[in-house]
Amino acid sequence: MSRRLVLVALLVTALYLSSIADGYPCSSTEGLPLVRNISELTQNSYGRPGLSHMTIAGSLLHGMKEVEVWLQTFASGSHTPIHRHSCEEVFVVIKGSGTLYLASNSYSKYPGNPQEFPIFSNSTFHIPVNDAHQIWNTNKEEDLQFLVIVSRPPVKVFIYDDWHMPHTAAKLKFPYYWDEECYLMPPTKDEL
Amino acid sequence: MSRRLVLVALLVTALYLSSIADGYPCSSTEGLPLVRNISELTQNSYGRPGLSHMTIAGSLLHGMKEVEVWLQTFASGSHTPIHRHSCEEVFVVIKGSGTLYLASNSYSKYPGNPQEFPIFSNSTFHIPVNDAHQIWNTNKEEDLQFLVIVSRPPVKVFIYDDWHMPHTAAKLKFPYYWDEECYLMPPTKDEL
Repeated sequence: MSRRLVLVALLVTALYLSSIADGYPCSSTEGLPLVRNISELTQNSYGRPGLSHMTIAGSLLHGMKEVEVWLQTFASGSHTPIHRHSCEEVFVVIKGSGTLYLASNSYSKYPGNPQEFPIFSNSTFHIPVNDAHQIWNTNKEEDLQFLVIVSRPPVKVFIYDDWHMPHTAAKLKFPYYWDEECYLMPPTKDEL
Repeated sequence: MSRRLVLVALLVTALYLSSIADGYPCSSTEGLPLVRNISELTQNSYGRPGLSHMTIAGSLLHGMKEVEVWLQTFASGSHTPIHRHSCEEVFVVIKGSGTLYLASNSYSKYPGNPQEFPIFSNSTFHIPVNDAHQIWNTNKEEDLQFLVIVSRPPVKVFIYDDWHMPHTAAKLKFPYYWDEECYLMPPTKDEL
């Protein structure tokens, strides 16, 4: 029994040390170099096919309070969910091309059929607050890569199953995929 | 005399039309394409030698309220002033190299001698709120180019003559260089 306890303690220590070794223990900027090489930052799909996400400057990783910056790459055919958020969001497309679907109907009952906007390398756009939107890499040959800037992190995202789902039925996903690991869940309550 | 009036009227009209033709009339997002080609955006030095500044998504140009994104290029030997601001600021270095000078002494009387950090292509860093800082392109061969993300635009900047000027003597520059054209100055008052 005490041998099992020692094993568990070793495992916990190993996990802790590996997070320190990564240089990115959650919720702490201590020990983080001020200038970081982007190619050495952790990237992950967070279970989403075709996605590579990297938090360049983040709320939970780096203590940002007002802005957050991501570098994201979408493989051909991959896409974001249809979603909305009340924060501001700016995109700077670094490479590839794709389509932005945007439904500017936040005052209607549901998003409805979205407008389509071609996006391309060296383009920029921002998403009007609370508008439902989705981005697809519609280019069969090339990855789509962009920097994403959001305000008021960590991001609170409402996800739609389709463009005709009522705004009120969209489901809150919080913490978002890349924030799950570092976000300390508040104690469970019976009511909101 | 009336011929002179006609000439003046023509000149004013031409100036107005050229601002419209640019696609960026101040303080209005009407007529602005949602997806913009970065290589077609206006860039300017705003009177600062060696600087090329472009507002990719801005408060006064695009109605952003929480974040602003700039693309800036500094020629060899050029630099920012020594300055501080209470907003958050993230840099993503696209090309070139240089030096970040940072004095984390916002609780002392003056910034004092700054720490030096090499910055390089594909690096990222953020400036601790209210820390005095300065960026130099110290590379003799190459331009230094980065994306800058700031919160709470338009930016309010306090400029120091040198690293030993007291924080309280640093001079507010508002609106900042690129915001001057579009910022509607409040009526002059005798007192602050």
